Amino acid sequence: MTFSYRDLATLYRNALLNNVIPFWQKNSIDAQYGGYFTCLDAEGKVYDTDKFIWLQNRQIWTFSTLYNQVEKRDSWLEVAAGGADFLSRYGRDTDGNWFFSLTRRGQPLTQPYNIFSDCFAAMAFSQYAMASGSEEAKEISLQAYDNVLRRQQNPKGKYNKAYPGTRSLKSLAVPMILANLSLEMDWLLADTQLEQVLAKTVSEVMGTFLDPEQGLMYEHVASDGSHVDCYEGRLINPGHGIEAMWFMMAIAQKTNQRTSQGQQDAQLIHQATEVVLNILDFAWDEQYGGLYYFMDAAGHPPQQLEWDQKLWWVHLETLVALAMAYRLTGREDCWRWYQKVHDYTWSHFPDQQSGEWYGYLNRRGEVLLPLKGGKWKGCFHVPRAMYLCWQEFEQLHNQQ
Amino acid sequence: MTFSYRDLATLYRNALLNNVIPFWQKNSIDAQYGGYFTCLDAEGKVYDTDKFIWLQNRQIWTFSTLYNQVEKRDSWLEVAAGGADFLSRYGRDTDGNWFFSLTRRGQPLTQPYNIFSDCFAAMAFSQYAMASGSEEAKEISLQAYDNVLRRQQNPKGKYNKAYPGTRSLKSLAVPMILANLSLEMDWLLADTQLEQVLAKTVSEVMGTFLDPEQGLMYEHVASDGSHVDCYEGRLINPGHGIEAMWFMMAIAQKTNQRTSQGQQDAQLIHQATEVVLNILDFAWDEQYGGLYYFMDAAGHPPQQLEWDQKLWWVHLETLVALAMAYRLTGREDCWRWYQKVHDYTWSHFPDQQSGEWYGYLNRRGEVLLPLKGGKWKGCFHVPRAMYLCWQEFEQLHNQQ
Repeated sequence: MTFSYRDLATLYRNALLNNVIPFWQKNSIDAQYGGYFTCLDAEGKVYDTDKFIWLQNRQIWTFSTLYNQVEKRDSWLEVAAGGADFLSRYGRDTDGNWFFSLTRRGQPLTQPYNIFSDCFAAMAFSQYAMASGSEEAKEISLQAYDNVLRRQQNPKGKYNKAYPGTRSLKSLAVPMILANLSLEMDWLLADTQLEQVLAKTVSEVMGTFLDPEQGLMYEHVASDGSHVDCYEGRLINPGHGIEAMWFMMAIAQKTNQRTSQGQQDAQLIHQATEVVLNILDFAWDEQYGGLYYFMDAAGHPPQQLEWDQKLWWVHLETLVALAMAYRLTGREDCWRWYQKVHDYTWSHFPDQQSGEWYGYLNRRGEVLLPLKGGKWKGCFHVPRAMYLCWQEFEQLHNQQ
Repeated sequence: MTFSYRDLATLYRNALLNNVIPFWQKNSIDAQYGGYFTCLDAEGKVYDTDKFIWLQNRQIWTFSTLYNQVEKRDSWLEVAAGGADFLSRYGRDTDGNWFFSLTRRGQPLTQPYNIFSDCFAAMAFSQYAMASGSEEAKEISLQAYDNVLRRQQNPKGKYNKAYPGTRSLKSLAVPMILANLSLEMDWLLADTQLEQVLAKTVSEVMGTFLDPEQGLMYEHVASDGSHVDCYEGRLINPGHGIEAMWFMMAIAQKTNQRTSQGQQDAQLIHQATEVVLNILDFAWDEQYGGLYYFMDAAGHPPQQLEWDQKLWWVHLETLVALAMAYRLTGREDCWRWYQKVHDYTWSHFPDQQSGEWYGYLNRRGEVLLPLKGGKWKGCFHVPRAMYLCWQEFEQLHNQQ
C-alpha cells in the first residue's frame, strides 16, 4: 500500500457513500412492514425475514449518524425513521426491556435475555432523536440507557445459567459497551453522570480486564479481578480487545476537550496503543495473514470451533484503532501495522462484484459464508469503520 | 479399502481395546477427587479440570457397557465406579435435576438448563446398575428417566428464551434421545411403558421430523409438524439425522424380537436406510470428502460458522448406521457408502502418534483443534461406534 492520507480518506468516503450505504438502501428496506431485512445473500437478496433487534437498532444508528455527521439527506433520515417507527412500536416487552428478535411483522420471538439489545437501542434512539428532533425518541433512548445501568450487574437476569457463588465471572463486554454508549449519549446525559460513568468504565477496562504483564485484554475475570483457569477465564477475543482500545482513546480525547487533565489522557492513549500492538502481535496469523477470532491465553485449544476464522468486524475495528492511534501518537509501528492490516482487509473482504463486504472468511481468507448480512452482520461495522477511518485520515491530511 | 468382514471386526476390536480405552484409562482418571478429566490435549495431558456432566455420565456408560457386554474386567468396573460415586454425590440439585457442569471437586458451576444431562445420567446409571448390581444406581437411573419424561415438553424450563406463542418449535433431539435412552433402559422399564415410548418416538422421528419429499431429517419443526422458514426451521444436522436412523433400526430389531410385527419392522429398517443414503447424498463434500456439520435445507448460508467442519462423531455414527443398514438389508449401495466413509474416516481422524482420535477437522480434513477431549468430546462416540461396528462385522462374518 502506498496511499497518501488524502487517498485513504477518499477511499473510505467513496466506499461508504457510493458502495456500502447504497447497498443497504437498495436491499434492506422492508417497505411493507417497516424495519429492515438484514439476512441478505451475496447479491443482496433477502433469504430470511426475521428481525434481530441488535441489527435493527444498529441500522437506525448508522443512517441517523450519517444524517447528523455527514449530510442532511432526507433519504437517510427516512431510512432511520422506518426502523425507529417499527421498533418503538414492537421492540420492547411490557417492562420496557428490549427483545432479542421479532418476526417480520414485529411479533416477539426471543425474550430480552441480555442487555445488549437495550445498549444498541439507547445508541440508535439517541442518534435518531438528534437527527429527527423527536422527544419520544429521546425518552426511548434514556429509558434503554437506564435499563443497561440497572441490569449491568446481572446482564442475563433469570436466563443466567451460572450457579450462584461457585465462580462469578464478569465480562469485558459490559464496561466496554457502556464506554461507547455513554460517549454516544453525551448530549443527553448530565456532565457529572457522564464523567462518572466514563471514569468507571476506563478503570474497569484498563484496571481489571487488562493483564498488565501480557498486555492482553481478557474477556472474563473473577469478581475480584483475578484470572480464572477455565475456558471463559482464558478467553482472548482479539477484535473485541482492540475495539475496546479505540473506545478508550475516544474517551481520552473527549475528556481532554472537557477538562484539563491532558497528561492523564495522553497516558491513557499511550497505554491503549500499547495494548493494540500487543494484541496484534499475539493474534496475527503468520501463515495466512489476518487476525484470529478467538484464542486461549494459555495456548490451549479454545472452545470456539470458529476460532481461526477471519471476521470482517475484527479487521475493521483494528483499522479504526490503528488509524486513531497513529493520528494521536505518530508512532511508526502503528503506521506499519495499519498498512499490513489494510492490505489484508481490503484484498479479502470487499465483494467487487455485488458490493458491500463479506463477513466470514476461513483461516485461509476464502469466503466461508457468501452473505452480506445475517443474524449478526448488518449495516453497522462496515459503515461505522469507514466513516471513522475517513475522518481519521482527513485529520491526518489536515495536520500535515 | 479391501477388508473382509473379519478384518473389519478385528480392526474395530483392536482399536477399541488396545488404543482408545487404554488412552482414557491412562489419562482421564481423577484419582484425587473422583470423576474424570475430559479436557485432554493431543498427548493426553489435562488442560482443564472442569467436569461436564454429559461427558462424566458418558464415560460411566462406556466403561459399564464394556463390563456388561465385552468382559468382566475389574479395572473397567473400577473406572465406572469412580465416576458414579462422584456424580451420585455432586451431580444433582436439590430437586434431583442434573447440573450441566461442576468444578473438579464437584461444586456446581452451571445450572440444569436442559434435559440432556438427565438423559445421559439415566443411560450411565442404568448400565452401571447392571454392572455393579447397585440398587442406588438403579434408583438414580429411574429418577433421571422420570425427569426426562416430565420435562420433555419444555426441555429448557425457565431458561427457554423463546417468546411463548409466536413460533413454537420442537426438536428432533428430544424423541431421538428418548429412543436411544429407552432402548438402553429396557431391563428397568415395564414392557408396556417401553413399547409405548418406543412407538411414540418412532412416530415422532419418522412421521414428524422426516420430510418425506426430500428424505431429510429436520432438526426443528413447528408444533403441528410443519416446516418454518427460519434459521432453526431450515437446519439440517446430517450426523444427527444419520444417528437417529440407526436408533430407528435398533428399535426395529428390538421390537422384532419381542413381538411378531416383522413386516412393520422391515419397513422401518428400509425407510431408515433410505434416509441415511439421502442424507449422505445431500451432505457429502464432493471437493474435500467428509460430511458437513450443519446445512440449510434451502441452500441458504447456515447460521453456524462451523458448518463446513468435519467432526469425529458425525463420521463414526455414519459408519455405525451404514454397517447396520448393510447387515440388515444387504444393499450394495450401503456397502459402497460404507467403504467411502470408512476410507475418509480412518485416514483423517485417528492420531497415529499418541492414540485416540482427533475430533475437529476443518473442511479440508486438517486438524483444527489438537485435542482428544474437551467440553463436548469425551470417552463416548469413539468407543461406542467401535464396539458397535465390531459387533456388526462379527455378525456379518458369522452370516457368511
